[in-house]
Formats: sequence, structure tokens, C-alpha cells
Amino acid sequence: MPRISITEPDDPRLADYVSLRDTSLRRHLESTHGLFIAEGEKVIRRAVEAGYRPRSLLLAERWPDSLSDVIERHPDVPVMVVTEELAEQVTGFHVHRGALASLHREIRHGVDDLLQCRRLVVIEDVVDHTNVGAILRTAAALGWDGVLLAPRAADPLYRRSIKVAMGAVFSLPWARLEDWANAPDLLRDNGFTTLALALDSDSITLDEAVVEHGNDERLAIMVGTEGAGLSRRWIDGANRVVRIPMAAGIDSLNVGAATAVACWALNRPHSDAG
Amino acid sequence: MPRISITEPDDPRLADYVSLRDTSLRRHLESTHGLFIAEGEKVIRRAVEAGYRPRSLLLAERWPDSLSDVIERHPDVPVMVVTEELAEQVTGFHVHRGALASLHREIRHGVDDLLQCRRLVVIEDVVDHTNVGAILRTAAALGWDGVLLAPRAADPLYRRSIKVAMGAVFSLPWARLEDWANAPDLLRDNGFTTLALALDSDSITLDEAVVEHGNDERLAIMVGTEGAGLSRRWIDGANRVVRIPMAAGIDSLNVGAATAVACWALNRPHSDAG
Repeated sequence: MPRISITEPDDPRLADYVSLRDTSLRRHLESTHGLFIAEGEKVIRRAVEAGYRPRSLLLAERWPDSLSDVIERHPDVPVMVVTEELAEQVTGFHVHRGALASLHREIRHGVDDLLQCRRLVVIEDVVDHTNVGAILRTAAALGWDGVLLAPRAADPLYRRSIKVAMGAVFSLPWARLEDWANAPDLLRDNGFTTLALALDSDSITLDEAVVEHGNDERLAIMVGTEGAGLSRRWIDGANRVVRIPMAAGIDSLNVGAATAVACWALNRPHSDAG
Repeated sequence: MPRISITEPDDPRLADYVSLRDTSLRRHLESTHGLFIAEGEKVIRRAVEAGYRPRSLLLAERWPDSLSDVIERHPDVPVMVVTEELAEQVTGFHVHRGALASLHREIRHGVDDLLQCRRLVVIEDVVDHTNVGAILRTAAALGWDGVLLAPRAADPLYRRSIKVAMGAVFSLPWARLEDWANAPDLLRDNGFTTLALALDSDSITLDEAVVEHGNDERLAIMVGTEGAGLSRRWIDGANRVVRIPMAAGIDSLNVGAATAVACWALNRPHSDAG
């Protein structure tokens, strides 16, 4: 399809791209219309290569032909060209690298698929998209098989999550739990050792967890929201509570950093040392 | 000092707090006036307890008396009270938890002080305040002694860095290098084994680094910017290039996640296992 030059901010063909910084508006708009937004050439290409179907592309005028392969493969998808000023006016921010795509949302995996994995990260109520994106990227990079998300956790297909994850949300299997309360039981019933990451005094250290459970057939680490941490229900439901010991005077690690350390320590097929 | 109610957005007593989201304006304003901004009760209290002198406090009308101890200890410091609307108008964002403080900037440590440490994280050109804050918090939490920053790295006393670090920027010693180019030599001349975190094929794995250097008297890990990673100069100047092996199809970890994994692996006085 030829490129369409668009000059009016209220052109209805731009409707997928409005107010990208308005989280609550976007959440409603994206779920209602079944879409998500990818930003930047690399991430757009990864989404398309992972099989997500584009609805449209929005390119800045000065955009080079570097997505031409994607465009050729999807000849029916409108490619809209706008000035950077218009892009900013519509989306509400300076469009980094000048390319956005709107793609069809899909549910790719169910909870049952994820329960077949060996190594799972289970995210409770982490509501920050940066943290959810970072955890998915870390899990994928360190060889974990998938991520389960509690009903209230932030959306992995939100623009910011996708960007921080560098597209790992497209390659790593993930699914959303329907039932928050029974998650520890569900995991246990499916053969997982569940490790709750928390700083409870009634816990074992990560080093102890590596010795005791590093070779368990199935492991799920459960991580909670930045402020309050995991819920009491998930902590009490876990096989083990595991802490990363903190230096004096420091409360806690960021949830992304803590997950990275735990993922690295508890999945070492890449290791011939230690 | 009694609380001062302020009702006009252009009141000169609010000058320290204008446009907190405008990074380049703030960088100029804060260095010119020698100040920095702390946000939220916990972080403000930590700054003051660490000995930083407040210039003023800005509280939302509905703010409880929870900073009264800080206010009483500094009777000469103006405490300004504004509506949340006025706070948002001046600062440019919704003031989370309704308390801000402006404090005097100080240089607390020199490079020479940091060179006395056992375990250093050395940040090259990480320009994202979130990442710099996260790295300082991680280094402090995992028992590293300090952080050196290259001249172009982001400011640890920028509001966003402080917030992400949860105040660790006040307790953990850090200093800014004057000379980027000679940093690897400087560290080596001061007895450090320098480990460059990079994905070069000509590298050893983190597991190998733990075995070879985990007990070295002095260790410095050097980390580079998100996109391009460490400079060739720092990589070539390091004693060792160390990689965290990546799963197939994933380019890299986020610099904060990679630093967390390396800090955990290479500093294990808390460990009696592994």
C-alpha cells in the first residue's frame, strides 16, 4: 500500500495512536479495540517476525526505508506519514526514532501452556510497566521459560513494557492468571517448587535455596510489588521464602534487580563453574 | 519557622521547584544554584539524616505532620504549603505523596576516597537517571563499597535517580571521575582488578570470573551505557572482559539487571554456600 500523508491531528486514521502517555485512557482504548503499540524499528520488526499482525504504521517524514521489508510483507496495512510535530501532537510525546506500529493483540499462551515449563517467574501485583518489561527481558535473557502474571500486574503489551523488554514480550511465553488466590496451590499441584522472594526473617537465603532447590525439576519464583512486596497469601502458600541478604541500612532491592539475581542464581545450565 | 502558604505559581520562593520534568533546564538550574530535589517523606528524611542541609520544603495542603521532626530540627528553613494543583502547575507533574525538599548540593567524596574501597562499581556513560539510581541502590544493597561515575554519566542527585535509589545515593559513597580516558589505568594502578561487563566473544563468563577473581582484594566492575555498552577504550583497558551468558535470541540484559547479577556473584561475604 502506498504511504498516506496525514496532516490533521484529528484524522480518524490516527485513532490508534492518541495520547500514548495517558495510561488509563490507553488501557481502555487498547483493550476495547484489541490493539497494542510498538515503538522503534527494532521492536516493530520483532513483533512482526513473532507473527503479530500490524493494523497500521505511523512514520515520521524523515523516516528512512528501513522498515520496507515489513511494509512489503503486509501490503494491505496502511502506512501513514506525518511530521514529527504532528506525531507529537497526537501521541503526546516526542516519537523516539520516528516509527510506531499498531498491532492486533492476541492471547498466545494460556496458563496451562505455562504450567508445562521448567522455570517460571510469577509476577504478583507489579503495576509499573518498566518493571514488568524488565522482568520479562531478564527472564528471557537468563534462560527462564516463561512468566505468569497475577490479574492486577501491569500489561506486558503496553508500549512502555515492550520497549523496556526490547521485544522479549514477543518471544517469551507468558500468560495471565485468572485466579490470584489459588496461584501457589496451582503451581504446587503442577509439580513446581514455589519460592517466594521476600525479606521475611522466616526465610532461607538465596544461596541456601540454590543448594536445596537449584536442581529441582520445576521451579517458580514469585515476586511482588515494589512497595509492599508479595502478599501474605502468596508468601504463606510458597514452599519456601527466599531472601537476598541486604547490606546494613538498605531496605530492599528493586524488584527487577532482585528478580535478575534470583533468575541468575537458580538457573545455571550455562554454568560449568561455581 | 511557621508554614508559609503560597498561592501564586510565579512566587520567587518556589524557584527551586520549577519544571521538575524538564531535564536540561533542571540540570542547569541545579548546578547553577547548587541544589537538588528530594521527593517523598522517606527520601527527604534520609537526605537530612545523612547531613544534607535543606534549603526549603514544599508540602501539599493535605500533608500530615509526618515531617515535623525534620522541620523542628531546621527552624530556619522555610516550609511552604501549596495546593496540589499549584504544586502540579509549578513542578509540572503530580506530586507523589505531596512533599518535596530542596537541599544544598555537596561533594561528599573525592575519587581518592573511592580508590580506598574493596568493591567498586564504575559507571561509564549511563545517561538514564533510572538506571544510575538503580545501580547505586543495587551496589549498596549487595554490600559494594562505592560507585565511580564517568564524566558523562547521569547525576545521582537528580530527583529521579534519588527516587529510584530510595535514598542510597545519600549513604553509599560515590564520586565523579574527572578523566574518562585513564579510568582503567587509574583503577589498576590502585590495586583493582578491573572487570569490564560486556558481551564480547573474547571474554570469560561471570562464573569463570567468580572462580578467578571472586576473592581478589580489590575488584572494580565497569558497566556501560544501555545501547552501545562500554567503550572500546574501557574494554581494552580492563584486566578481564566478563559476559553474562544470554539465552538464544536475546541481545542483552538491561544494565541495571546485569549490574545486579554481577554484584551478587562477585561479592559473597554473606554466603556460606554456592
